[in-house]
Amino acid sequence: MAEGHRSGCPINLSLEVFGDKWSLLILRDMIFGGRRHFRELLTKSDEGIASNILASRMKRLVETGMLTKADDPSHKQKAIYSLTEASIQLVPIMAALGTWGTRWLDVSEELSIRARLLTDGGEELWDRFMEELRAEQLGKKITPAPDGKSVRERLQEAYLEVVAAQQAS
Amino acid sequence: MAEGHRSGCPINLSLEVFGDKWSLLILRDMIFGGRRHFRELLTKSDEGIASNILASRMKRLVETGMLTKADDPSHKQKAIYSLTEASIQLVPIMAALGTWGTRWLDVSEELSIRARLLTDGGEELWDRFMEELRAEQLGKKITPAPDGKSVRERLQEAYLEVVAAQQAS
Repeated sequence: MAEGHRSGCPINLSLEVFGDKWSLLILRDMIFGGRRHFRELLTKSDEGIASNILASRMKRLVETGMLTKADDPSHKQKAIYSLTEASIQLVPIMAALGTWGTRWLDVSEELSIRARLLTDGGEELWDRFMEELRAEQLGKKITPAPDGKSVRERLQEAYLEVVAAQQAS
Repeated sequence: MAEGHRSGCPINLSLEVFGDKWSLLILRDMIFGGRRHFRELLTKSDEGIASNILASRMKRLVETGMLTKADDPSHKQKAIYSLTEASIQLVPIMAALGTWGTRWLDVSEELSIRARLLTDGGEELWDRFMEELRAEQLGKKITPAPDGKSVRERLQEAYLEVVAAQQAS
């Protein structure tokens, strides 16, 4: 019984799909970083994921329906990965993880500003972000944000402001 | 670089604390099942956790401040484990995981009824549940629920009703 056995508990089954650390970090980078190519996910990883781990996790994420893979029309011989409705709906889980980590752990200011904004924005902001991800990754038509900036752009701007302030001080 | 390196991202740091599957399942059983002794966690585990894995994860959860361990005044030679404020605040993450799993995976009816009730109850129910956990595990005084039933009792009753209906059909 060293490996245990499966149960039909939704928490347990969710963890079987994306509950290893690297899978969730890959999905984080696709959701918040907008990364869609293998090479970007590899070279821009804050945690320095190894290419064999990235390859095995991407394969499994496609198999479990969390990602789709297609030829990139703009780059010959390059594959482009897309989030699915299932992985887009991880936004509230990512927000809850970010809220908890920012409250309890020794996070860095620049890497936690996005979590703080997501916490403060609440469900309304998460819903808006998920709509934008559906437009970007699934081709769904949506009405643009009133101020013309996407949620990801706003999160990214806040991140760059913190980094700039750190470099100036 | 096979192991990668750390980053100060709150999602990454959170996963380092409780992001292995077994740690989160142990915390689930303590939160929703009210289990506080090693033996209960071992023998009642729906996933059949192995005792060496349970022992190593309990040790680490104490070290990272997610649990405390004390002598049980009512059982000689037995240790009792308590949740901490940090692990009690996992309730919204557990609820988000349960919501997602129930929506996307092939969960069993009896093991998902609690997740459905938590989803439907929203933040108000999670806050009430966390208050009850603080009373039970941290000795905090709270006002009893108006109907005299705790959130865990209500979740447990719903679970037993589904099991009874399945056995009758």
